[in-house]
Amino acid sequence: MLDTVLNLGLTDESVEGLVAATGDERFGWDSYRRFAQMFGNVCHGIPGERYEELIAEARDAAGVSEDTELGAAALRELTKSFKALFAEATGEDFPRDPQVQLAQAIAAVFDSWRGERAVAYRRLNGIPEEWGTAVNVQQMVFGNKGEDSCSGVAFSRDEVTGAPEPSGDFLPNAQGEDVVSGVRTPLDLAELAQRMPAAHAELMEILATLERHYGDMQDTEFTVEQGRLFMLQTRDAKRPAQAAVRFATDAVAEGLLDERAALATIDAGLLESLLHPAIDPDASFEPFATGVAASPGAACGEIVFSAAAAIAAAKEGRAAILVRPFTEAEDVAGFDAARGILTSEGGKASHAALVARGMGRPCVCGARELEIDLAAQTVSAGGATLRAGEEITIDGSAGVVTRERVPLREAEISPDLQTVLGWADRLRDLRVRANADTPADAKRARELGAEGIGLCRTEHMFMAPERAPLMREMVMAATEPERRAALAKLLPMQQGDFEGIFEAMAPYPVTVRLLDPPLHEFLPRGADLSPAEAERAEALAEANPMLGTRGVRLGILHPEIYEMQARAIVGAARAVGERTGEVPKLDVMIPLVAYERELERMRELVERVAAEEGSVAELKVGTMIELPRACFVADRIARIADFFSFGTNDLTQTALGFSRDDVEKRILDTYIGSGILDRSPFETIDRPGVGWLVRLAAWVGREARPELELGVCGEHAGDPDSIAFFAMAGVDYVSCSPFRVPIARVAAAQAAE
Amino acid sequence: MLDTVLNLGLTDESVEGLVAATGDERFGWDSYRRFAQMFGNVCHGIPGERYEELIAEARDAAGVSEDTELGAAALRELTKSFKALFAEATGEDFPRDPQVQLAQAIAAVFDSWRGERAVAYRRLNGIPEEWGTAVNVQQMVFGNKGEDSCSGVAFSRDEVTGAPEPSGDFLPNAQGEDVVSGVRTPLDLAELAQRMPAAHAELMEILATLERHYGDMQDTEFTVEQGRLFMLQTRDAKRPAQAAVRFATDAVAEGLLDERAALATIDAGLLESLLHPAIDPDASFEPFATGVAASPGAACGEIVFSAAAAIAAAKEGRAAILVRPFTEAEDVAGFDAARGILTSEGGKASHAALVARGMGRPCVCGARELEIDLAAQTVSAGGATLRAGEEITIDGSAGVVTRERVPLREAEISPDLQTVLGWADRLRDLRVRANADTPADAKRARELGAEGIGLCRTEHMFMAPERAPLMREMVMAATEPERRAALAKLLPMQQGDFEGIFEAMAPYPVTVRLLDPPLHEFLPRGADLSPAEAERAEALAEANPMLGTRGVRLGILHPEIYEMQARAIVGAARAVGERTGEVPKLDVMIPLVAYERELERMRELVERVAAEEGSVAELKVGTMIELPRACFVADRIARIADFFSFGTNDLTQTALGFSRDDVEKRILDTYIGSGILDRSPFETIDRPGVGWLVRLAAWVGREARPELELGVCGEHAGDPDSIAFFAMAGVDYVSCSPFRVPIARVAAAQAAE
Repeated sequence: MLDTVLNLGLTDESVEGLVAATGDERFGWDSYRRFAQMFGNVCHGIPGERYEELIAEARDAAGVSEDTELGAAALRELTKSFKALFAEATGEDFPRDPQVQLAQAIAAVFDSWRGERAVAYRRLNGIPEEWGTAVNVQQMVFGNKGEDSCSGVAFSRDEVTGAPEPSGDFLPNAQGEDVVSGVRTPLDLAELAQRMPAAHAELMEILATLERHYGDMQDTEFTVEQGRLFMLQTRDAKRPAQAAVRFATDAVAEGLLDERAALATIDAGLLESLLHPAIDPDASFEPFATGVAASPGAACGEIVFSAAAAIAAAKEGRAAILVRPFTEAEDVAGFDAARGILTSEGGKASHAALVARGMGRPCVCGARELEIDLAAQTVSAGGATLRAGEEITIDGSAGVVTRERVPLREAEISPDLQTVLGWADRLRDLRVRANADTPADAKRARELGAEGIGLCRTEHMFMAPERAPLMREMVMAATEPERRAALAKLLPMQQGDFEGIFEAMAPYPVTVRLLDPPLHEFLPRGADLSPAEAERAEALAEANPMLGTRGVRLGILHPEIYEMQARAIVGAARAVGERTGEVPKLDVMIPLVAYERELERMRELVERVAAEEGSVAELKVGTMIELPRACFVADRIARIADFFSFGTNDLTQTALGFSRDDVEKRILDTYIGSGILDRSPFETIDRPGVGWLVRLAAWVGREARPELELGVCGEHAGDPDSIAFFAMAGVDYVSCSPFRVPIARVAAAQAAE
Repeated sequence: MLDTVLNLGLTDESVEGLVAATGDERFGWDSYRRFAQMFGNVCHGIPGERYEELIAEARDAAGVSEDTELGAAALRELTKSFKALFAEATGEDFPRDPQVQLAQAIAAVFDSWRGERAVAYRRLNGIPEEWGTAVNVQQMVFGNKGEDSCSGVAFSRDEVTGAPEPSGDFLPNAQGEDVVSGVRTPLDLAELAQRMPAAHAELMEILATLERHYGDMQDTEFTVEQGRLFMLQTRDAKRPAQAAVRFATDAVAEGLLDERAALATIDAGLLESLLHPAIDPDASFEPFATGVAASPGAACGEIVFSAAAAIAAAKEGRAAILVRPFTEAEDVAGFDAARGILTSEGGKASHAALVARGMGRPCVCGARELEIDLAAQTVSAGGATLRAGEEITIDGSAGVVTRERVPLREAEISPDLQTVLGWADRLRDLRVRANADTPADAKRARELGAEGIGLCRTEHMFMAPERAPLMREMVMAATEPERRAALAKLLPMQQGDFEGIFEAMAPYPVTVRLLDPPLHEFLPRGADLSPAEAERAEALAEANPMLGTRGVRLGILHPEIYEMQARAIVGAARAVGERTGEVPKLDVMIPLVAYERELERMRELVERVAAEEGSVAELKVGTMIELPRACFVADRIARIADFFSFGTNDLTQTALGFSRDDVEKRILDTYIGSGILDRSPFETIDRPGVGWLVRLAAWVGREARPELELGVCGEHAGDPDSIAFFAMAGVDYVSCSPFRVPIARVAAAQAAE
């Protein structure tokens, strides 16, 4: 990912030696001008465009087209002008001493660790700043030594599908940078078998050896110098989820890996892309352009032409497709922000394709019909011109782009993925539940393998349009009897919701969280308020609502609200039990408990209601652990709780003093950019702080009540790194959004001892 | 404090026996009607006024004035009407079986633990709900058996001044309830020596014995029945601070106690009242009324006639004086809310006087000129009538009330208090600093014994009217250069502030906290905003400002702000050093640190500025520990911190998830009232939660850096119970508001092993 400087050591003197030794003047000067360009760009920050301008001028002067190579004389002149540019830009002569060149190149690579691109990369990949970087110095071999030379990249298996045939790209008479940059369109690796059969055969053998050695799919760089193969680099291949799944199942079938080892090769976080929508195969539409299917999945969004615009759109919640002729390291931050990437140049091994696959973003590369004008902010094809902000859809599985609104289809779990999930279910100890608030969510969650609902948020039910007026009536009630009257009208609706969810999930348990948000959230905003509502809203307004009148505090101040909810839950359980003969398992969850007596009072209330209703369901009462104090008194709380569910979102907010809304908007970027933080504590659990609290509460709670059930229902429950932590902390289950359930199943298996 | 039922066991039958045994019909029926009244009121909740009405009717029927006792026949009729009232109110006959009476009385006392009055009392005195109560059953002796009988209260020393002469009140031919209720004005204890010399002499001897036995000033109840003295009760006397201090110094002088034991008799929290203002002795003014000097200190506020009104006024931040004919247990919550208490009836042993002294509130009792009309909400004297809301001033040290605005004078530390503070300073290990933001505060703090400033809040300096426009300019700056320009103008002012404070405090250390509040707090509110300011305010607005862009986060986002402050601090230190020859000791404190790297960056910044300025001061850089995460990583933070100062206010907010603004307004009353909480965690530290964090950080921090200095600068630093905890946790110093410094000195000594 970090910078490379090729051809280092060439000087005005040594280039003559290279020419003499090879008898190839053009080769010598091509290598030297490449070095002059890369050294100036990488080690001294001279913009790449300055060099491109000089190349364009040289072409004009020589009268050659873009597809024709410059001759030796032109390259010599070009090298001279590159050195002049260097002197002008740096105020120093281009170094003539190879040792000085080497020292500067090494320093530049070390420095690049602090650069913006490296910071963006580390951020995306969760790499801590203190790891630092290394510098490799390698002897040069030349892929640009004529038509019996080439440079290329090769994967031990197909890097997009995972199919068990090596794949890759190469460029004859070229150096590696040409292949990766995507500026020239490379040839398919199959072509190498025709052109240099011996090298190709040796490469195939080496790829198989490397795979056996590393036990994983390999991503290599190679150069053929006058027919002789050199391997420059190998690493475990980044791959899209479908390729990862295919590799894992094939590797087990081939006897290369056992199930546990095969599972370990899968980046669980990427599986999300397999659950992304695709274009409905039955839909007919007019393609705007076609290109290489570089990273699977379909995405729809407004056109943006820069990483900055993609980031801006994401911050405002708008979906964007990043459209570029080709991408470079500077664009990486935009990949994360965009829903998909579209380029007019480059192939499957281009920068855009590699990064998009690594990040699970749909990508169409090398759509050559497209004319992208970055200055004018337009993209044209077939006579039509689209501007920034207009909507397009890309299908990275098919390599198609369209301006039409085409229906996207929910992903299905492929047989290979089913196989992998089957291993995961056998290997994991952690159970996986889903967060679901509706029968539809519950159904989807089950299909994806959820073993219950770990968080059913009752407030979402209250926000449905037909209930909002009743909820408003409840909030506006000046007295308890008025409030009870409004609640009585909500009761049957709430019971109906629960019936649907219980039915969809039986016989698995459903954890229902009683009302959590502050009441003012149920009033309309601003101008839509009646004068009485405005007054009430003002009376309910709080300086810091996150830390105010919400959660169990509502239940203590207005017990009638929780009483209605308890009645609806118990009533729904009875109705479902009578209807289906299957008695639902109910976990009633009290949010935001800080004091054991809060839970004690609410437990009494729920049990009283259950007794009044003659409940037949299996009823547990537990609490969310989402405040630091609750962790410290977890023993006292555990004595009256059947379960704890860690609400790691709020635990992160309180332990770190981070209001998520505010911190994500203003602080997090600066903190990550300046190395104070490695990644967002809202994505991956902050182990020293929040993790400490989780471990403490788990330990102290279980000391007091060994059978205490422990779950996690914050967003971290769907994050593989956090799941690994929860498994260590002794948690029984995680509960995440339905379509992260497969990820959690795999991550849980990976975390199992 | 809980309920008493006297004369229990009297029935229609036994009253005749009592009459026969004593030959005193009036006495027998007086005792019986008292029992009927107390039993109905205490055990069955029949309002006291119902009985008072019947008594008034009986007086009218008998044609006797209020000062004359009713005769036997009238009392017999009155008892009958009390029993009829009982039957009417309860639907049951008045119990004729003494066993039934006893059982009901015992049950009532146990039940009273849950009553509103008991809850209010516990709350004020920080008594946990689970302690429960006991019931004493005592043989009855009769103070109403004629003129050779009496009931009274006696203190082993003067209960107001602490002077070493017993004091008290008694009422001849009366029962104890008459003395305490304040309805009849009792006689001074000195009078008892005249009327019943033998009983008086015996009482004096017993008081001295009790004091020697308990090693503390005693508060007793006694009854003389036909010349024979009975002691009913003794307990350590509640006393105002001046009496406590006087007792302590006298007890040491008398050889009764050593210094440590004498200190232990002082309720450190009450010392605050000695530091309350008094009416300037040189001021001349017209008294509106005079009464008993029942609890020292002067106070000024608007007249309120009920506890509820006092509480309402306090919630709105208005000073109130609670004015009542006499007070009862129901009024106790109002004492806490009011600045002072004024009654027209009762003496030094009246309920009002006892409670006011116990709580350190100024009180004037028994101002007989006052005519208080609760229905009309007026108080009149000398032809003038004041209404609720009008302002009065009371002087509880002199027993004077005035309508004029008289100058109040700052309290001086009496020689006795100086003595006590001298002991405290010798005995304590904890150092005591003050929170002070101005040279005047710093000077006052030193006079009160502060050994440095533990918290100097720089934002208060920015809020001064002449700086507000410059601060606004800084907040409005769109770019860093603009912000730097505004800061450059603030620099000399800020430096001037620091010079004054450093000079006032040298050679003690001054801990300066760099800017903490969110920037939008420096913009004017609402309508006063220009359109540009309104836009900026909106851009800066946060969902939960407590957890948002404040503290060190400002320093990271806008380092130029902290840089200016560091420059002003270092510059001021140099200027003061040059001027006075005394080099200030500086502790620069970075607020709201969660990550060690935040502190690292800011420490670098401060040290860079100090190096640039050629600082000559002794400079330490440390942090406030006010987030749970900081406690967990206290070892990492300690490696780059010279000191920790626990900001227990914010630590309470985050650990408990309690936004103080919101929780105090809406939740705390309900929580304390319903027994979820015993007292506000913002007054006394929450040991299981916040205390855990403090202990952890102290331990882990010192493990990493043994010489780490530990302080506390939250409000808990002035609370004796919290100080006891901090001493156990190994804290080096507490820092509180200047006029709580003497309290902290005493509490620190009490906490010393």
